[in-house]
Amino acid sequence: MTSSLDPPAGILREVVALALREDLGLLGDLTSLAVIPEEAEGTARFVARSDGVLAGTAAATEVFRQLDSDVVVAWTAADGAELTPGVGFGSVSGPLRSLLGGERSALNLIQHCSGIATLTRRYVRATGGRAQIRDTRKTLPGLRALEKAAVRAGGGFNHRECLSDAVLIKDNHLVHHDLPSAVARARAQWPGRVVEVECDTLDQVRQAVEVAADLILLDNMTPEQVREARAIAGPDAALEVSGGVGLDTVAAYAEAGATYISVGAITHSAPALDIGLDLD
Amino acid sequence: MTSSLDPPAGILREVVALALREDLGLLGDLTSLAVIPEEAEGTARFVARSDGVLAGTAAATEVFRQLDSDVVVAWTAADGAELTPGVGFGSVSGPLRSLLGGERSALNLIQHCSGIATLTRRYVRATGGRAQIRDTRKTLPGLRALEKAAVRAGGGFNHRECLSDAVLIKDNHLVHHDLPSAVARARAQWPGRVVEVECDTLDQVRQAVEVAADLILLDNMTPEQVREARAIAGPDAALEVSGGVGLDTVAAYAEAGATYISVGAITHSAPALDIGLDLD
Amino acid sequence: MTSSLDPPAGILREVVALALREDLGLLGDLTSLAVIPEEAEGTARFVARSDGVLAGTAAATEVFRQLDSDVVVAWTAADGAELTPGVGFGSVSGPLRSLLGGERSALNLIQHCSGIATLTRRYVRATGGRAQIRDTRKTLPGLRALEKAAVRAGGGFNHRECLSDAVLIKDNHLVHHDLPSAVARARAQWPGRVVEVECDTLDQVRQAVEVAADLILLDNMTPEQVREARAIAGPDAALEVSGGVGLDTVAAYAEAGATYISVGAITHSAPALDIGLDLD
Amino acid sequence: MTSSLDPPAGILREVVALALREDLGLLGDLTSLAVIPEEAEGTARFVARSDGVLAGTAAATEVFRQLDSDVVVAWTAADGAELTPGVGFGSVSGPLRSLLGGERSALNLIQHCSGIATLTRRYVRATGGRAQIRDTRKTLPGLRALEKAAVRAGGGFNHRECLSDAVLIKDNHLVHHDLPSAVARARAQWPGRVVEVECDTLDQVRQAVEVAADLILLDNMTPEQVREARAIAGPDAALEVSGGVGLDTVAAYAEAGATYISVGAITHSAPALDIGLDLD
Amino acid sequence: MTSSLDPPAGILREVVALALREDLGLLGDLTSLAVIPEEAEGTARFVARSDGVLAGTAAATEVFRQLDSDVVVAWTAADGAELTPGVGFGSVSGPLRSLLGGERSALNLIQHCSGIATLTRRYVRATGGRAQIRDTRKTLPGLRALEKAAVRAGGGFNHRECLSDAVLIKDNHLVHHDLPSAVARARAQWPGRVVEVECDTLDQVRQAVEVAADLILLDNMTPEQVREARAIAGPDAALEVSGGVGLDTVAAYAEAGATYISVGAITHSAPALDIGLDLD
Amino acid sequence: MTSSLDPPAGILREVVALALREDLGLLGDLTSLAVIPEEAEGTARFVARSDGVLAGTAAATEVFRQLDSDVVVAWTAADGAELTPGVGFGSVSGPLRSLLGGERSALNLIQHCSGIATLTRRYVRATGGRAQIRDTRKTLPGLRALEKAAVRAGGGFNHRECLSDAVLIKDNHLVHHDLPSAVARARAQWPGRVVEVECDTLDQVRQAVEVAADLILLDNMTPEQVREARAIAGPDAALEVSGGVGLDTVAAYAEAGATYISVGAITHSAPALDIGLDLD
Repeated sequence: MTSSLDPPAGILREVVALALREDLGLLGDLTSLAVIPEEAEGTARFVARSDGVLAGTAAATEVFRQLDSDVVVAWTAADGAELTPGVGFGSVSGPLRSLLGGERSALNLIQHCSGIATLTRRYVRATGGRAQIRDTRKTLPGLRALEKAAVRAGGGFNHRECLSDAVLIKDNHLVHHDLPSAVARARAQWPGRVVEVECDTLDQVRQAVEVAADLILLDNMTPEQVREARAIAGPDAALEVSGGVGLDTVAAYAEAGATYISVGAITHSAPALDIGLDLD
Repeated sequence: MTSSLDPPAGILREVVALALREDLGLLGDLTSLAVIPEEAEGTARFVARSDGVLAGTAAATEVFRQLDSDVVVAWTAADGAELTPGVGFGSVSGPLRSLLGGERSALNLIQHCSGIATLTRRYVRATGGRAQIRDTRKTLPGLRALEKAAVRAGGGFNHRECLSDAVLIKDNHLVHHDLPSAVARARAQWPGRVVEVECDTLDQVRQAVEVAADLILLDNMTPEQVREARAIAGPDAALEVSGGVGLDTVAAYAEAGATYISVGAITHSAPALDIGLDLD
Repeated sequence: MTSSLDPPAGILREVVALALREDLGLLGDLTSLAVIPEEAEGTARFVARSDGVLAGTAAATEVFRQLDSDVVVAWTAADGAELTPGVGFGSVSGPLRSLLGGERSALNLIQHCSGIATLTRRYVRATGGRAQIRDTRKTLPGLRALEKAAVRAGGGFNHRECLSDAVLIKDNHLVHHDLPSAVARARAQWPGRVVEVECDTLDQVRQAVEVAADLILLDNMTPEQVREARAIAGPDAALEVSGGVGLDTVAAYAEAGATYISVGAITHSAPALDIGLDLD
Repeated sequence: MTSSLDPPAGILREVVALALREDLGLLGDLTSLAVIPEEAEGTARFVARSDGVLAGTAAATEVFRQLDSDVVVAWTAADGAELTPGVGFGSVSGPLRSLLGGERSALNLIQHCSGIATLTRRYVRATGGRAQIRDTRKTLPGLRALEKAAVRAGGGFNHRECLSDAVLIKDNHLVHHDLPSAVARARAQWPGRVVEVECDTLDQVRQAVEVAADLILLDNMTPEQVREARAIAGPDAALEVSGGVGLDTVAAYAEAGATYISVGAITHSAPALDIGLDLD
Repeated sequence: MTSSLDPPAGILREVVALALREDLGLLGDLTSLAVIPEEAEGTARFVARSDGVLAGTAAATEVFRQLDSDVVVAWTAADGAELTPGVGFGSVSGPLRSLLGGERSALNLIQHCSGIATLTRRYVRATGGRAQIRDTRKTLPGLRALEKAAVRAGGGFNHRECLSDAVLIKDNHLVHHDLPSAVARARAQWPGRVVEVECDTLDQVRQAVEVAADLILLDNMTPEQVREARAIAGPDAALEVSGGVGLDTVAAYAEAGATYISVGAITHSAPALDIGLDLD
Repeated sequence: MTSSLDPPAGILREVVALALREDLGLLGDLTSLAVIPEEAEGTARFVARSDGVLAGTAAATEVFRQLDSDVVVAWTAADGAELTPGVGFGSVSGPLRSLLGGERSALNLIQHCSGIATLTRRYVRATGGRAQIRDTRKTLPGLRALEKAAVRAGGGFNHRECLSDAVLIKDNHLVHHDLPSAVARARAQWPGRVVEVECDTLDQVRQAVEVAADLILLDNMTPEQVREARAIAGPDAALEVSGGVGLDTVAAYAEAGATYISVGAITHSAPALDIGLDLD
């Protein structure tokens, strides 16, 4: 079964293979091979060491699946669940060498994803439900699918997958065409796709409304400016706030009328969530 | 020429190919293709938006090299340099579509690496030169080589590359053998390699000293305990402090006698450094 | 410079590497190695053997680039150009062994892409400009980016890149939710994305209009039904006709009020365009 | 068990991974994730919508295997079987999200392969058993193994796998050496391999016979010329007819004495066979 | 220019990328980075330390090309040349770090290939030109193309590329069909390909002659038996001797009438040729 | 369960996929497909044809796992075991086509690895336990992990995994810094790692002792010189002998006081061990 919080299986396989190649090197886990008997078995529990939101369990499962088919992974919480410090939420059982050999790779993945889910949830909470938190393309190479899945686990929503699924006209794109002409060109060339327009000024908002942009991105505006943009655009327009939004200001933007608030920090600056794998 | 701050060229090529595959999708950059004329040229400057330490320039260069051989990338600062907000440190010139198409991938890489270098440097500074900051294996899948290079750019040092280059005996490894026997086994099986021993107590430190461990990892100890460990181990022993060290406590650990202080946070929780690519 | 008719460079590199790996095997081109002197040089011209539309030049260029950097490729026509039988539109010059070794791979790519562009253009022409021809996800594994670029070269437009860039609710999706509820769920989970709804009946069209679907896909309808759907949906609704549209009926659908007509055949059933590479 | 109509398993895995990576993107199947409950199960049947010959079942099986190990794929017909419109020949059962998520990839593969098998069989039938139909190297990048397997399913035979398994001397190879000398060189350098010679004239056929070429390729000849070539070469010579052979002329060539008739169109221009996956 | 002694360029790229990934690890060449100044330049010469035959220069060139485009590689001898101990046959110039970083990878490749070429040449010489030495499929994973190219450099010839380019019926294949029936089946299924038959007895040779096998493999026969086989098969039959042929017996087999003598040892057991890279 | 004699699972998967891709080509095993019935089953036994040490069983298992999940592989001896000619040590059972299709790939791997283990063991035996035999970086591209595992199976020990896990200062590194300064630089830049120093003279040995190098590599010295080096370095110093050590001289070096003797030949020049796969 595929959860809507999971990245595609093929991507998981590639990312985990990369992680294990990096971490096991050419010789494998020297320490376990030397001091753990080959036949030793064990069980270890995933335990949160601080509050947070779980994400990345599918990746952790895949680590042990690739490493040793004799390892059994079981989860008692799913991605998106709130974690309580000291409480276990999953376990791995099997050959001890494999548990220790995969520990770091599994934790690196689950801590990173949970860190993103946790920060996302804090933003989501801060909006009080008045706006939706969205991610950006500010993700790490090879990890975008996992990071965007983690955003969903945190209660956020996914913005553009990549440069080829929607149009987003920014100031840099307006060197050779003005906003209306740029929108017209984008629509002509890529019909049937979302055309979003980044606006730095209320004047641009007016232009964007006039050309009926599908989404209006309000870049680096104050909550007050957002309020004015909302007034200009009307209650049904999709307004996305972006740039310089922090946990302290996100509520103000939500109240000011943002439909979406996109936050790069939830992917590029989320600290890892502290999670351990405790051997029984 | 290869800087000691660069990751191996082959890894850079793989990581960047992955980043571009993710970001360009199957159709490419819809927006630029629609609103930027094919023959338009431009120049953009990399500019720091906050204080920090530069890292990841080789990765950014590789982005544009893979995207379009007509783009020229030039750096006026090298990895490891201190960045001043508002001051440019590099530029890209060439077909405007390519500049915009590679912008996000290049920034994602350089911001992540510079974020790591910046946080590393803060730790390095905080030690006042009395101890060395080291990274850990707490890195992101596929990015370890880049992240470890960024740590070096920040003035830190690299711990184990992976599980197969050195032995590190932790508490989980002592289920079937006591510490001296584990060390003996590791030395017997992997002669000529560094054997590091994680100690949770001063008693274990004494055991580690007795078996002449090459490195002693003091896990989750207070500065006071580190001081005692130093007294036990003698002035020449290599003591590595790890676990729960923050910017506020790192100086105390350095003073207490740590040779190395390893900090997972510099790789797994460094916020991206705010860097922009400003079109002229 | 990147043409909007080119697939992303990274994909081209992967596809061409695959093609050459298949065609050169482990020993290379036995025949050329045996009967062509190593130092022999030559020039060959790409010549159309029948009418058609050119596409895939970037792929052909990449074949020779990967094979031998001494080969010079030059085009006198660009993707999208109409080809005249017997008239050359490009040339390759350099070591004869490399020209012959890459010939088949280059031709396979350019013939396939030009075949798609040619069939697309025939559909485009047949609509008389009253509707836009769009492709589908009915593409061949590994070749989607090239095939969608070829559709653009033919004057067509690209529909969804893949399953993850837009929502398209078909009859199979309505097992557990009715149409309005399905649309609501899709919008709730993936806000800010295009939601297209496939309608098999005019009743469904009414429902789709009520929920303000971004696009309405009219599946296997007659031109007459399309006309009624247009009447129901109003002049501004985006109506996409799909299913069983041939060159003989496409005009009728365009006249009946289709905004887009999507045709699987232009990718999955376009015969290769007959193109030769004639040695001078 | 490996059927002689299957491509090697490793190639199937690579092709299918590529197909799924393309079609699922970074987020997966948005529509199914939104409107199909995670626990919903279903069964769908592969049904031909027109007459044809089945091929590509192994590829379709691999799609669902990679996507979700809970999906069960069962076939009631094997590659090479004649399909009847409206009659099912296989089924997939399991999580509905996975059935819908893999549908397009599986159909793209099976429709393409069956299209090739179908067109091949038509050529095979048209020869009335008097000659064998062979494929060429005119295949699509990455798909050669699947396409050549589909040709076998259609009753055709495989010509050269690639440039490195046999020698085929064409007119372009005779710039520096005449035909006898070219054959001699090829035999000297690659002893123990098939040396085939392309002949454009009966004179060349005589030369080829004189040097005892293993195979003689009659390029773009009329049936009458083929008859003369047969007279020249004798009843036991292997004569391959190639170039401009259509379904309307293939019988004439077979009657004229061709041993093999190689047809590029069966791989490069076979329309997809119309096959559906109908949900129960 | 492509020499007939080179493996295909794409394979070289893959093999060398693999070699460098293994040897540079995640951090690169620690030693050079620490003790060689970044700007230091140098020149080093490839020098044979014992007699032998050169092969693998293209692979060595590719090592430095991938590592650092500033390194210039020049050869004064080509693959196939006889090497004299102490005499240089090529040089690399450029950044010293890159010369040292690539040294081992380049030498590993060139020593292995030259080892194969050298042993092959010894066998070739031993036959006195009365038979041809051929390789087998007894090659190392990933290196077959390079090893077969090295055999050619040594004056040997390439047998089957892989299982899919020719038929070779061995005793294990005769469990369900006798020799004539097996040959008939192979010819029916794979027409136009070489069908070789392994014979353990002279009786089998007679059968093989009767069915006109293209090649007859005499397995583990004595020179005397080979002589009898030749008498049976006639002067024009292609007889391949295989199994237990050493440098001491190869001449006897050649004299006895072998057309080809295939020797697994030239690929699976050739010692590396001692070659150094001496810094000026 | 993971044996300390196995390479990491991910590497095995990659190497075996490469081997099968090479050997099966695009069409598969023509011979088996033609002459072995699809439903035929069989059992074959791995049998040594000469004395030696077993290695590479995990790789052989992986060959059949990738080829056909219906094949059962069972071993009665483990890596490191002594093999007796004519005695079986493992078997494969299942579809006969798959047994024959994987035979060569499995044997190539197991023969190569066992050849290395066998030669290693001979060196190990020759030392009489007075020194340890170590491998070098003189391995084949893509096979280092398997070859180093085979060395362990033979009773040898692994030296550096790659250039990035330890420092080894050779004469080429001393162009810009003298030995003490080079050691100091290496320690400063890569603290906590082994620093080994290659010495060509006893004078250099004295310098290396003075700077307390972790390992001293005695390059191309006579046993007598090694004895003097031991006297200089003291009984506890780790001395590694390298260069020109053969089976005839290794005992003398061991007696002379070598701690380790590293032998390139055990990986780069070990002849394949003769092992067969005999069909029951």
